[in-house]
Amino acid sequence: MKIAVLGGDGFCGWPTVLHLSDQGHEIHIIDNLSRRWIDTELGVQSLTPMDSIQERCRIWKQETGKELHFHLLDLAREYERLRGWLSDHRPDAIIHFAEQRAAPYSMKSDRHKIYTVNNNVNATHNLLTAMVETGIDAHLVHLGTMGVYGYSSVGAPIPEGYLDIEIDTPDGKKAQEILYPTRPGSVYHMTKSLDQILFQFYAQNDGLRITDLHQGIVWGTHTEQTRRHEQLINRFDYDGDYGTVLNRFLIQAAIGYPLTVHGTGGQTRAFIHLQDSVRCIELALADAPRAGERVRIFNQMTETHRVRDLAELVAKMTGTEIAWLPNPRKEAAENDLVVENAQFLALGLNPTTLQEGLLDEVVEVARKYAHRIDRKRVPAVSAWTKDIAKRVETDPEGKRLKSAS
Amino acid sequence: MKIAVLGGDGFCGWPTVLHLSDQGHEIHIIDNLSRRWIDTELGVQSLTPMDSIQERCRIWKQETGKELHFHLLDLAREYERLRGWLSDHRPDAIIHFAEQRAAPYSMKSDRHKIYTVNNNVNATHNLLTAMVETGIDAHLVHLGTMGVYGYSSVGAPIPEGYLDIEIDTPDGKKAQEILYPTRPGSVYHMTKSLDQILFQFYAQNDGLRITDLHQGIVWGTHTEQTRRHEQLINRFDYDGDYGTVLNRFLIQAAIGYPLTVHGTGGQTRAFIHLQDSVRCIELALADAPRAGERVRIFNQMTETHRVRDLAELVAKMTGTEIAWLPNPRKEAAENDLVVENAQFLALGLNPTTLQEGLLDEVVEVARKYAHRIDRKRVPAVSAWTKDIAKRVETDPEGKRLKSAS
Repeated sequence: MKIAVLGGDGFCGWPTVLHLSDQGHEIHIIDNLSRRWIDTELGVQSLTPMDSIQERCRIWKQETGKELHFHLLDLAREYERLRGWLSDHRPDAIIHFAEQRAAPYSMKSDRHKIYTVNNNVNATHNLLTAMVETGIDAHLVHLGTMGVYGYSSVGAPIPEGYLDIEIDTPDGKKAQEILYPTRPGSVYHMTKSLDQILFQFYAQNDGLRITDLHQGIVWGTHTEQTRRHEQLINRFDYDGDYGTVLNRFLIQAAIGYPLTVHGTGGQTRAFIHLQDSVRCIELALADAPRAGERVRIFNQMTETHRVRDLAELVAKMTGTEIAWLPNPRKEAAENDLVVENAQFLALGLNPTTLQEGLLDEVVEVARKYAHRIDRKRVPAVSAWTKDIAKRVETDPEGKRLKSAS
Repeated sequence: MKIAVLGGDGFCGWPTVLHLSDQGHEIHIIDNLSRRWIDTELGVQSLTPMDSIQERCRIWKQETGKELHFHLLDLAREYERLRGWLSDHRPDAIIHFAEQRAAPYSMKSDRHKIYTVNNNVNATHNLLTAMVETGIDAHLVHLGTMGVYGYSSVGAPIPEGYLDIEIDTPDGKKAQEILYPTRPGSVYHMTKSLDQILFQFYAQNDGLRITDLHQGIVWGTHTEQTRRHEQLINRFDYDGDYGTVLNRFLIQAAIGYPLTVHGTGGQTRAFIHLQDSVRCIELALADAPRAGERVRIFNQMTETHRVRDLAELVAKMTGTEIAWLPNPRKEAAENDLVVENAQFLALGLNPTTLQEGLLDEVVEVARKYAHRIDRKRVPAVSAWTKDIAKRVETDPEGKRLKSAS
């Protein structure tokens, strides 16, 4: 297949590019390289030394003989070029990672909120409009997030995208299928909730064939392909904005930095290893909906864990202490989370779970590049509201939390 | 109160401005005048001769002694100026009409789709962000639409914003309140569905006080205040993009143009007279939610009618014939619609219904300005998909429809 990978230079995008190229697909990376610019803005860098996208593509060709085509293009700001590209290349499938994807970054300031909404909504909507306009029949696979649902469920398993409800009518109860209600907890998560409405409309009005993957928190850094050459190495974020919880614990452990648990650590989240993430995308690609079908929605996760349990696991494994800090986010202190993922299991996903030595692998990577870490960038500082910012500022080390416990 | 009316130069905005000014509020109109630019783009004009906003404000001052403050500002593109304005003026309430509001315009071409999403989402989101950033405690009243729900309900009355459902959990059924599921049928309606998610988030995260009015199709043109002087007259659209169904029938009748019914005319819609619309806004303003409360949602409509019944009513009243045309929209041919509006009735709304001579008034206005009508601009030409466009193009007069019936 000819596949366009939008955001193919990113943390999930790059391993996906390599995985699909390895399988013999013709891969076109479309990326505006905004994530590299944000590194520059924040003054942080990937733990792993990452080459330019052009250099990475060159190495992949050298190692495998397979060509990766890179196109510098801004989906949200260059609609005409996007439409022209789709019209010229007519891909069979489009994988859409091209959105600002960090909740803390999306909450940093008014400018970051506005950037995230403007960028993400327009990127997705421009893409959908261009697909309609060019009349291409590509299967669109989008990376969404479990976070659209928020974490205050009533204890029922979160189904895959849809919910059957009954409505009282004058003729008795009638069944109706609805999109599972979303309640996003950050501006970033909110944009994925908006995407869901865009997809529903364009599938219904124009018969676009769309799969939306509601992904859990990705951990790990290597895949089979990124291991093949030092210069194919994947991005690995450790900073308070882009680092995700389990990867951050592993890096903190590697450099002897106390594991930063915010609040009680009672937040339960869904997780998936990077290798499974790229495998899920492969499975979703092969299972395309037909035109006129509703949007196909998968929960792309393999296990759920409570944050403090993860911290305790990593602490035990590495001897690192835990720092209990005030929570800069506005969220429930404790929540349960049960998630259905029967669809991917049925398609053949064989989950990689936490207990398989992969934690060690990440710690190894972190130790290898520990000299590249700026310890001042480890704390999470983006607060969800001005009130929370004040609270965190006056008590950065969680002294009140400690005295209360 | 000091009230900012965003989009205060528009069809609903202007009568709202006058109504609230008349009640003694200090009114600030914020508008980018985009609706006037769209008239220029389309080469159509309001049936009624409309003066500039500055001239209208001058006449109102002359007639009533009351000042209207006009600020030319683009919400979607001038965030910094918006924030500065809010910070300087700190209004007590903000009424937000400032979105592209025609479904056919939003479906005209890829450019129009992109403009509508970009403009509407960024206008609303910039406003919400600026409210948070300036810390003002204004009550935000937004004009939404009944159209977010689509028109394929199972026959149950559409409640006001929320739906109580039961979810199966391991501990038995649990009640949960959700936003009533939306299924918008055009890009325009979709943007109002997106707005709803934005409001939910900012009410929850930042305690913004928000009321969302899900309005039916507005008909009529005068209010008590617009009648006071020829130069205070309201905009009145008759073209296929901006004219709304009942007003269009009345204008068509006034100029002897066959009443354009698309499809079977079996579409049932919610309606409200312009005078009731401004009264509803007054009532909603006085009933502000508290910080931390969920978004207050009202169905702002007073009656439902089937389109062909309206056509037949106007035909009978005026002797005009009906033209049965192919439907350029993608929508159910026939639907029922029951809508709850108990909240506004409880607050004291006394509905103006179709049977009160107001139809005659609109026909009067239309006859008075009939010489300003370009008959070529009466047909609705924006098709919802390329396939529909082809079908309508090859059969513009609905001959196949006629032979089939």
